[in-house]
Amino acid sequence: MDITSEISEDLLRIPFQELHDVLTSILLKNGFARDKAKTCAEIFVQNTCDGSTTHGVSRFPRFIQQIKNGSIDVQAGPEFKRAVGCIEQWDGHLGPGPLNALFCTRRAMEIALTGGIGCIGLANTNHWMRGGYYARMAASEGYLFIGWTNTMALMPAWGAKDKRLGNNPLVMGVPFAPSPLVLDMAMSQFSYGSLETKALRGEKLSHPGGYAADGELTADPSEILSSGRPLPMGYWKGSGLALFLDILAAALSGGSTTREISSRSTEYGVSQVFVAIHAASLSTENNLSEMIRSIVEDVRQSIPIDPNSTVRYPGEHVLRIRKQNDESGIPVDRAVWSEISLMQ
Amino acid sequence: MDITSEISEDLLRIPFQELHDVLTSILLKNGFARDKAKTCAEIFVQNTCDGSTTHGVSRFPRFIQQIKNGSIDVQAGPEFKRAVGCIEQWDGHLGPGPLNALFCTRRAMEIALTGGIGCIGLANTNHWMRGGYYARMAASEGYLFIGWTNTMALMPAWGAKDKRLGNNPLVMGVPFAPSPLVLDMAMSQFSYGSLETKALRGEKLSHPGGYAADGELTADPSEILSSGRPLPMGYWKGSGLALFLDILAAALSGGSTTREISSRSTEYGVSQVFVAIHAASLSTENNLSEMIRSIVEDVRQSIPIDPNSTVRYPGEHVLRIRKQNDESGIPVDRAVWSEISLMQ
Repeated sequence: MDITSEISEDLLRIPFQELHDVLTSILLKNGFARDKAKTCAEIFVQNTCDGSTTHGVSRFPRFIQQIKNGSIDVQAGPEFKRAVGCIEQWDGHLGPGPLNALFCTRRAMEIALTGGIGCIGLANTNHWMRGGYYARMAASEGYLFIGWTNTMALMPAWGAKDKRLGNNPLVMGVPFAPSPLVLDMAMSQFSYGSLETKALRGEKLSHPGGYAADGELTADPSEILSSGRPLPMGYWKGSGLALFLDILAAALSGGSTTREISSRSTEYGVSQVFVAIHAASLSTENNLSEMIRSIVEDVRQSIPIDPNSTVRYPGEHVLRIRKQNDESGIPVDRAVWSEISLMQ
Repeated sequence: MDITSEISEDLLRIPFQELHDVLTSILLKNGFARDKAKTCAEIFVQNTCDGSTTHGVSRFPRFIQQIKNGSIDVQAGPEFKRAVGCIEQWDGHLGPGPLNALFCTRRAMEIALTGGIGCIGLANTNHWMRGGYYARMAASEGYLFIGWTNTMALMPAWGAKDKRLGNNPLVMGVPFAPSPLVLDMAMSQFSYGSLETKALRGEKLSHPGGYAADGELTADPSEILSSGRPLPMGYWKGSGLALFLDILAAALSGGSTTREISSRSTEYGVSQVFVAIHAASLSTENNLSEMIRSIVEDVRQSIPIDPNSTVRYPGEHVLRIRKQNDESGIPVDRAVWSEISLMQ
């Protein structure tokens, strides 16, 4: 249960409500309507509470900066473009990414309620922060969820030196108690956020995560950040999957491709997909939850490589972190907190 | 263009039609109706023509064996169970996997024609051989396609020693000229088929693909086959994705999980998902093909690591192989051909 080893002197613990109030007030100051400010602040704080050091409060200053430089239009929200059966296309009009994503997740769920499956393609939106948030939300209301986003070019294709592929995170969620199962994975073996975090701490990666300047594989995050050559997860497999997720996101939304996004000075106007499936129409709730539990329990009964460890399911880790953060306060980087305090 | 280096003295070249006729006659002898025999033989031959050494004709003897031992019921076909909007559940009744999969791909396309998206969950089916076949077919008729299957337990979860996860291949296809883009990837870094092929040839893998008996990562396929510990692609990422694909396949089809399949003496009665999206409803055909081409061309213009090579897109390789095989005949392992000849 103890995660204090991860909490260095550079981290503060701030109570959930206090953090939420501060972020809300800053968003109000930056032109958000009150309900949207509260919802948006909630997403940032929840992501941090769930243990995302890279796509929670730490990214809030950059989010405000993007509002100030015009990449994010706080007044804008999704506009309906077209429906084809259970698919809808929406234009995000460069509104706040988390609010656009939340809206489209809910809309996909609404469509699924009658159509079994609901699929939204969202064009011209912005970074959704942590995709797992939307997967968790949909799954906690009984839906199966699949979503992904494209990004600017962040990694070379397999066999290439220069960045042409997004890391295009893919998220999935399924109902589970006490907390939904959530998968949230970038197509690079390590996200830029984790490379940066590890580099700052002077730590090595657990596995080779990209190429050094000399073209050799390395587990040194600083070398990878400097070469700009992170490794796709599973080598050619992550490279291929990133390419397909970009094509599918652009096709389903009618929005920009990674190539188009990368031609801009900063990352904005990305394409996202939200697929919700109304699981209860396909199976009784008991059958579904028993089936999922039988799979999870089976995997947890694996013989661990490390005899002092257990094999975890995706999301198990988050439960522990969330409990600790709920009790002790949300961990925020001291430097980030100073920056945020100046914005009030 | 020259792939003859891959053709050793152990391989024969058999004209497409001759091979097709032989397989058809064997299927007829094993109780298939004529049209089904021809279609099923076609899938085996096409897969081999596309370069799949592991899920084409080489697997035909095992397919016949499974008919003889009752795992495959040649008389059975998919039966409709339930529709919920754009999702349908079908029961494969242990019919021939390739025919069941072909049927469900077509049915997903039919639903997508009016519903935008069509999603089929298929329970109680058998090995579909090469999932890329169905992705290619749907994409060549203008659909975006996503499909996956679960399997018996073939790899340990991340951090575990014993096999509890299927390698649950995921396939995607999108329209492209001269031939659709197709992604077909197992959740293990290397499929069992490629481990076996490499081991037979005494070759090493290009990257570590699993653990040796001593618990160290190895690129020796024989050591991995003997330890039974192939590595998930992207380590924890492929492990997590395999788990989710199993849950989603069982939930959507109402069929068996990897755990249930693994409790049987051999692999049969797997669960599969077929998702087709009618791309033309979302975008003009020109816009779609231009968008896909712009992405593919961008990636092909990458600076290659090997200056004597070019960066390929998924499926590019297949074009070259198919042309060679169309011209020179389908490559079939001499031992496999002897076995097949005895079945006539």
